[in-house]
Amino acid sequence: MTTIAETPAATSDLAGLLAQHRDGCALEAPFYTSRDVFDADISAVFARCWIFVATEAEIREPGDFVTLDIGRYSVIVVRGDDGQVRALHNVCRHRGSRVLTDASGSVGNIVCGYHQWTYDTDGKLLHAGSQAPSFDPNCFGLKRIHARSVGGLVFVCLAEEPPEDFEDMVQRVTPYITPHQLERTKVAAQEDLIETGNWKLVMENNRECYHCENGHPELVCTFFPTWGYSDLDQIPERLLPAHARYLRSQAELERACRERDMPYAEIEEISGRVSAFRIQREPLDGAGESYTRDGSSASRKLLADFDTPRLGRMSLHHQPNSWFHLLADHAVTFTVLPLAPDRTLVRTTWLVHEDAVEGVDYDLATLTDVWHQTNAQDGIFVSRAQAGVSSPAYEPGPYAPNEYQVAGFVTWYLERMTEALTR
Amino acid sequence: MTTIAETPAATSDLAGLLAQHRDGCALEAPFYTSRDVFDADISAVFARCWIFVATEAEIREPGDFVTLDIGRYSVIVVRGDDGQVRALHNVCRHRGSRVLTDASGSVGNIVCGYHQWTYDTDGKLLHAGSQAPSFDPNCFGLKRIHARSVGGLVFVCLAEEPPEDFEDMVQRVTPYITPHQLERTKVAAQEDLIETGNWKLVMENNRECYHCENGHPELVCTFFPTWGYSDLDQIPERLLPAHARYLRSQAELERACRERDMPYAEIEEISGRVSAFRIQREPLDGAGESYTRDGSSASRKLLADFDTPRLGRMSLHHQPNSWFHLLADHAVTFTVLPLAPDRTLVRTTWLVHEDAVEGVDYDLATLTDVWHQTNAQDGIFVSRAQAGVSSPAYEPGPYAPNEYQVAGFVTWYLERMTEALTR
Amino acid sequence: MTTIAETPAATSDLAGLLAQHRDGCALEAPFYTSRDVFDADISAVFARCWIFVATEAEIREPGDFVTLDIGRYSVIVVRGDDGQVRALHNVCRHRGSRVLTDASGSVGNIVCGYHQWTYDTDGKLLHAGSQAPSFDPNCFGLKRIHARSVGGLVFVCLAEEPPEDFEDMVQRVTPYITPHQLERTKVAAQEDLIETGNWKLVMENNRECYHCENGHPELVCTFFPTWGYSDLDQIPERLLPAHARYLRSQAELERACRERDMPYAEIEEISGRVSAFRIQREPLDGAGESYTRDGSSASRKLLADFDTPRLGRMSLHHQPNSWFHLLADHAVTFTVLPLAPDRTLVRTTWLVHEDAVEGVDYDLATLTDVWHQTNAQDGIFVSRAQAGVSSPAYEPGPYAPNEYQVAGFVTWYLERMTEALTR
Repeated sequence: MTTIAETPAATSDLAGLLAQHRDGCALEAPFYTSRDVFDADISAVFARCWIFVATEAEIREPGDFVTLDIGRYSVIVVRGDDGQVRALHNVCRHRGSRVLTDASGSVGNIVCGYHQWTYDTDGKLLHAGSQAPSFDPNCFGLKRIHARSVGGLVFVCLAEEPPEDFEDMVQRVTPYITPHQLERTKVAAQEDLIETGNWKLVMENNRECYHCENGHPELVCTFFPTWGYSDLDQIPERLLPAHARYLRSQAELERACRERDMPYAEIEEISGRVSAFRIQREPLDGAGESYTRDGSSASRKLLADFDTPRLGRMSLHHQPNSWFHLLADHAVTFTVLPLAPDRTLVRTTWLVHEDAVEGVDYDLATLTDVWHQTNAQDGIFVSRAQAGVSSPAYEPGPYAPNEYQVAGFVTWYLERMTEALTR
Repeated sequence: MTTIAETPAATSDLAGLLAQHRDGCALEAPFYTSRDVFDADISAVFARCWIFVATEAEIREPGDFVTLDIGRYSVIVVRGDDGQVRALHNVCRHRGSRVLTDASGSVGNIVCGYHQWTYDTDGKLLHAGSQAPSFDPNCFGLKRIHARSVGGLVFVCLAEEPPEDFEDMVQRVTPYITPHQLERTKVAAQEDLIETGNWKLVMENNRECYHCENGHPELVCTFFPTWGYSDLDQIPERLLPAHARYLRSQAELERACRERDMPYAEIEEISGRVSAFRIQREPLDGAGESYTRDGSSASRKLLADFDTPRLGRMSLHHQPNSWFHLLADHAVTFTVLPLAPDRTLVRTTWLVHEDAVEGVDYDLATLTDVWHQTNAQDGIFVSRAQAGVSSPAYEPGPYAPNEYQVAGFVTWYLERMTEALTR
Repeated sequence: MTTIAETPAATSDLAGLLAQHRDGCALEAPFYTSRDVFDADISAVFARCWIFVATEAEIREPGDFVTLDIGRYSVIVVRGDDGQVRALHNVCRHRGSRVLTDASGSVGNIVCGYHQWTYDTDGKLLHAGSQAPSFDPNCFGLKRIHARSVGGLVFVCLAEEPPEDFEDMVQRVTPYITPHQLERTKVAAQEDLIETGNWKLVMENNRECYHCENGHPELVCTFFPTWGYSDLDQIPERLLPAHARYLRSQAELERACRERDMPYAEIEEISGRVSAFRIQREPLDGAGESYTRDGSSASRKLLADFDTPRLGRMSLHHQPNSWFHLLADHAVTFTVLPLAPDRTLVRTTWLVHEDAVEGVDYDLATLTDVWHQTNAQDGIFVSRAQAGVSSPAYEPGPYAPNEYQVAGFVTWYLERMTEALTR
């Protein structure tokens, strides 16, 4: 029926799609709407790259676990009896039942509820009922997944051979992260939001702040809306006072960092590598301490026993799907997990000092207010974008200069897809 | 897997389907159930023909707009500052966001809520934030859609080159419509009903009254159940008294029309053209004035300051998806919009004189009663039809003589699909 | 896009799937997740085999009917004026409307609600409104489906030529069924449960009791958890006392059967035939009378005016989709109907003596308790299995010895699919 019109089916030729893309413009519609592209995204991106899945604060004791889905994969992240963080496929080796069915919890061994096959936290099969003499339990351990903690942030890689450049990233971002001592934090709150749009629309929305000035009234109390203007000549006149404040705050922040031997300079490594990232410590507006409506701290028990609340935001972007803000008083992590071409889970986790007491050191509503509101607003933007690009009249438009990081995300994504085609 | 059975996938060969159709019988199942046929319907029918989308009464002032979806297209219908009705694609030229998200409203300019790209009501891009010097706003106006008002009924055409025979239809139906002065009406009520069936089942149901006698007790108080009997010998004996009333009422109506220089004769132009229609003024049963349980007027403030409430129903059928009844005291319009192979929106709009006062000149429940009930009944018929034709045991049966207009609709539809294949 | 990864689309090659299966192991993922396999299951299994659809107790009087869906087929099971049970396609021969829309009821004639086409309970078209002279009503009866009652259990076959080996099965199972006189029963309760898993996972779950010991605390009050151990050496030590009780009860039961001339021996005919089944009378644990928490009777009015409540369970498995337990005091039937690759209806029906009085002879909650709980538990197991096998990490594991009947089901299923490919 392709003689009549370009139906979605006509778009399943990924090579054709890639050839058709115009540099500096948004992606073509099928990248956001096609089931075939979605499947390819899972296999070529999510099943190959390192993916942020949890904080160590969620699994502090041996036997603590979380489960989550990456595409059709179900992943167990568990702390072993030896204190190591491991990841396992959440699929029983008997007849395939999902083994752990809670989103989080604590176990001695990992027991499948169907026929009581019992594995230790390494995945080794311990018991499996009555079996034929030829049955070798060593052949039926839970399948292992590569896992790695980076300063308390747990990444997994579903590929048999993980990308080698992750090590380089770890080396370079670790000095920015460790000062916050995330291993001494606890989870104050976690929020799962299902947005009705493709995961790449969620990511593109995150990689620019062009929409912040009007779209995020709570966030721009502290987040400078000039963020993303690579060319300062582009900053519109009405934002020049904000930019002047930014420069003053940035100078102050750099001084504070140097006094404490904390790195702050921007590193941006996006194109040309699998483990792509951007990291920088930047100042906050207002009182300059935290993501609140006036910028003052949300928790008076500072992370890492810092001697000042004015450490701005240590912000890390990791491709394909996560970002992080580490402040003096708390940290907040985000991971984006595709559910369907037009449905995406965004998980947000707020961490505070392990000794901070709710109601005493921090008020939960105040702590989560800004990003709770911002996430909800972004969810609406993403749903409108998904609706719009689904029209046959949609034609990808050009990125503005202050969307250069969106362009960077798209370039990186297209590199992954091109690489997958030539493998 | 086609060696096992005819799966729905086996039906995506439209040419084969068309060849297989038996004249005078209902359509084969895939026409109602296949996603491929649905996509073809949108591109070959809804994106090529003129489609009724709104009444001018819904957008009386400059800046007034409605939005609605035709397949995956989202359409803005807006009255410009110059008073002209225009239609625009509801897709931002930046990154594709849906621009207007309300179903109706009023705007000065059309502003995308994502990054504040601002368009005038012509679609011209006025502002787009900070852009590179090479950015030419003239290249990024909202895309235009052909729009045309016919006596207050707004049609759009998504094709670049609209069908030429629409002009002929407009010339011939306008004299039937203009006496009702729809430009001097207001919307009393609008109802959106989602029926769980294919849009063609909704249309086929509309094009016959074989099911009215038992299916629509409220409607047949005024709508003669003999409608659709092209051959009078076919009228069953129990309906002969109704037919005798029809003939008397028709004679009286024709006299009233001649006295007022209003056309009433049937014109039926279905096969062999794209812009196909049927129009006729016919009498109502009971008190003969309006669609109410006893046939008396629902609004005592007559349209166009008519000097009599006894003007029957001026009924227009337009292919592919709309019908209209213009009475002396009110008008009611229907548009059928496909949502999925098995889901269809039916939008019904009741218009009354612009000066009619609710609660004084008309009671809203009385005005909407008959078609509200009739729509709900039809929704059930359509859902049962969709369920039935989805069975592999379904075999299209023959149309009865009083279903000749259903046969006409089907013939017209098949002409469109055949034409699309040969284009 | 198959160059990137095995997408579900890559699995639609049924022949390849069959070739890839490893004997003695669970089925590969696409058998549970693919829409193509699902469609093939309907056409190659459900539209070819005899399928249990209802008990005669549900349609005791002429005109009584039930409707139910087998895949996309809708089936009417009706008792004719002559007392015979018949099955008809629930699709009007006019324009395909579903004719009977209730799940059960009683009719004089079968009248389509759309245009009043009227059929008798044989399916013959009696009236069809005004038709052209060439219209021959004899050509437009409701299409017939083969139907057969086996001791009060109604089976239908959608194929034009039903499998011939059904007759052999009927001959062999009838002596086990008739002593219970199901024609003298009434429906005490019926429960429809929609499980979120493939129909084969529902069946596989039914064909083993490996999961009963921990999974069904109410059922194992009476159902020996040693069921399914074909090799007695395999029975784990902790179950040996239960096995000893089983052997004693079995000896007692066999004595009771011989005294009453009732057959009890196992017949297992699975591989190598279409109409495959397993039948056996086995003892119950506890009080040994019925499926209750202590094993005592749930209805004191025994079926068939039995002189003892201790007749164990006469259990019949029928491929592809049903099982039955006939006890002294009641009977319970199960039929499994696929709705989608990951959604399945399980209908459970409890029958008691036609003269048993609710609240006097039996308490409804007690009667339905054990299987209501067991069904709900099984529904959870099936949903976890469906979730698990959907992971790309799923690899079919080996069946344990006490799952030999699951292996038998899978073998029989694969024979059907192989046969379909070579037809």
